Amino acid sequence: MKRYWPLLLPLACLAQPRPPALDSPELHPDRTVTFRLAAPKAAEVRLTGDLVKAPVALEKDDKGVWSVTLGPLQPDQYSYRFAVDGITVIDPSNQARPATVLEVPGDGPMFYDLRPTPHGTVQERWYSSKTLDTARRAYIYTPPNYEKSSDRYPVLYLLHGAGGDDSGWTESGHSNLILDNLMADGKLKPLIVVMPYGYAYPPISPLAAGADAMKRQRSGFERDLIDDLIPFVQANYRAYSDRDHRAIAGLSLGGGQALGIGLSHLDVFSRVAGFSAALGAVTSPQAGGLDFHALVTDSKKVNAQLKLLWVGCGTDDTLYKSNQEFSGMLKASGVQHTFRSSEGAHTWLVWRRYLNEVAPLLFPVT
Amino acid sequence: MKRYWPLLLPLACLAQPRPPALDSPELHPDRTVTFRLAAPKAAEVRLTGDLVKAPVALEKDDKGVWSVTLGPLQPDQYSYRFAVDGITVIDPSNQARPATVLEVPGDGPMFYDLRPTPHGTVQERWYSSKTLDTARRAYIYTPPNYEKSSDRYPVLYLLHGAGGDDSGWTESGHSNLILDNLMADGKLKPLIVVMPYGYAYPPISPLAAGADAMKRQRSGFERDLIDDLIPFVQANYRAYSDRDHRAIAGLSLGGGQALGIGLSHLDVFSRVAGFSAALGAVTSPQAGGLDFHALVTDSKKVNAQLKLLWVGCGTDDTLYKSNQEFSGMLKASGVQHTFRSSEGAHTWLVWRRYLNEVAPLLFPVT
Repeated sequence: MKRYWPLLLPLACLAQPRPPALDSPELHPDRTVTFRLAAPKAAEVRLTGDLVKAPVALEKDDKGVWSVTLGPLQPDQYSYRFAVDGITVIDPSNQARPATVLEVPGDGPMFYDLRPTPHGTVQERWYSSKTLDTARRAYIYTPPNYEKSSDRYPVLYLLHGAGGDDSGWTESGHSNLILDNLMADGKLKPLIVVMPYGYAYPPISPLAAGADAMKRQRSGFERDLIDDLIPFVQANYRAYSDRDHRAIAGLSLGGGQALGIGLSHLDVFSRVAGFSAALGAVTSPQAGGLDFHALVTDSKKVNAQLKLLWVGCGTDDTLYKSNQEFSGMLKASGVQHTFRSSEGAHTWLVWRRYLNEVAPLLFPVT
Repeated sequence: MKRYWPLLLPLACLAQPRPPALDSPELHPDRTVTFRLAAPKAAEVRLTGDLVKAPVALEKDDKGVWSVTLGPLQPDQYSYRFAVDGITVIDPSNQARPATVLEVPGDGPMFYDLRPTPHGTVQERWYSSKTLDTARRAYIYTPPNYEKSSDRYPVLYLLHGAGGDDSGWTESGHSNLILDNLMADGKLKPLIVVMPYGYAYPPISPLAAGADAMKRQRSGFERDLIDDLIPFVQANYRAYSDRDHRAIAGLSLGGGQALGIGLSHLDVFSRVAGFSAALGAVTSPQAGGLDFHALVTDSKKVNAQLKLLWVGCGTDDTLYKSNQEFSGMLKASGVQHTFRSSEGAHTWLVWRRYLNEVAPLLFPVT
């Protein structure tokens, strides 16, 4: 069920420019499909994969867009790719940011490496969302020995970025290994981490488009989190049920969500962190964002409720200035917080380090 | 921790020819890295990603191979890609078979679709392998309501193919949703499915190369499965502990493993299935494969022990003939089994259907 949804939300921000939008693959009502690729300089483009027995040539139009229409196809899930002058190319209209990983090992284990210590478990868990009238999936990390223990644990809700999904924090973020290592080193109390899917409506939904899409996504996710996911976690895991043992953090889109939802639900969360947060929806009331007046009028109450408010951003991030300004707003309003300025851009290199740095601050070892 | 290991085993077989092997990314001892891409027809190749602030141009040699050396780099995990005449290209030396998915929906839900029924949970679980002296990961599916029940369940060990990993059967195979749907329709008894990582030694290990690599991989995986993983499952899940409630199945490389390990451990497994099985290691004693004499000399005993032996292959699969011959050997030896010949090639389209077809035969609803 892994799907990397294309990026539709206006609050999205990514460090790399996105390829021009072509409709590919375009599925027609009769189950024929048109594949398209812009490759003006290519001499030959072919399509390969599950749906053809042999490579099929595409034809170029006068704008340099290659295309072919195949089918009708039987209902199924087909994998495919293009060969452009013999080089394999992922359809850029179907997956925004394909990449592979280069691992440069350290002299010893890095903070995200698998070490010979006890390991937690990651679950892909379905829950029923009354808010959104559908089954939704969350990745849930339980700490080492959870299964054999009868203890209760604090919970961190950890949100992914735009274009990602609930698998991102484990697959790209190695959150489970980072937390395993912190616990093995005695730097972190055992905790449960819940990594939800951050879109109320996936891009294929009609509700993901249109003028109110951003507001609808924001409020739909917020209600699903508060009214459905948290009660599910409380009913199915040995989690403390009070706000003192509940934190929310996230990166980019999820950073904006964590700050926005966290600060407006201080009855639910006591610790809030934004990593390279996309703040448009947080500070814009038109987008259903945060009402800053609540903070301004009673910062003493907010300070008394907040056990941690942490805002971090890399100085090479295009969002750095807006995070710095947000910190300034908090300061001017008398809201205590940590502003963390670090090297780096809008990438996992930064977010893995932030998790490693912030997790021990959330629920300190006493 | 997801890694698509490059394909090293000689028993591997894939429907598509593989790109020529280039050493990319080549990590040097001083932590400089050389990236290479064969693109003789390209006019311009650049590298982008986490490790460069701006795209970096590669230079072409007289064989059409583009390269650039960067660094020294700080230890980390970087994502990167090439832009070939402006088109994003995954490094083919770093990921063998990049592809995206085209979903052609049916008029109603397909057998692998998410439906509004109870859902099982998929766990990414680490266990300690004494055999291999390391922590190893398995994906483990528990059926709907497992957490709230006190029942015991039968177990299917379900193995991935060459170049895949323990995530393959859920991410590409949708095994969890296929099983959810079968159970919702009353066609399958609730069961646990354990999806191990099928290589004893990942390709980065020195033990994954050399003359005896195939034999070492086969016997290492077999011992890890029998001596470490099965005892871990028995100790940590409510699983029946007898052979009557234990099955093994797999696809391609994993199909050969399932047939080889299953038939030579009838004290452990009662049901065995191979999907498009790569049979080289099964039928070749030099590769540490199956001793067919054991079957020949006492087929009556084998037939009495086996509750199901199922061998299936698509007629467009290059492995079809060897599977047909294997079935002929079984028949000549008097070993009862099902040989299933179906449409299709060496793809997930076939394997999803085989799981949907075979799961209800493994542990029939009574």
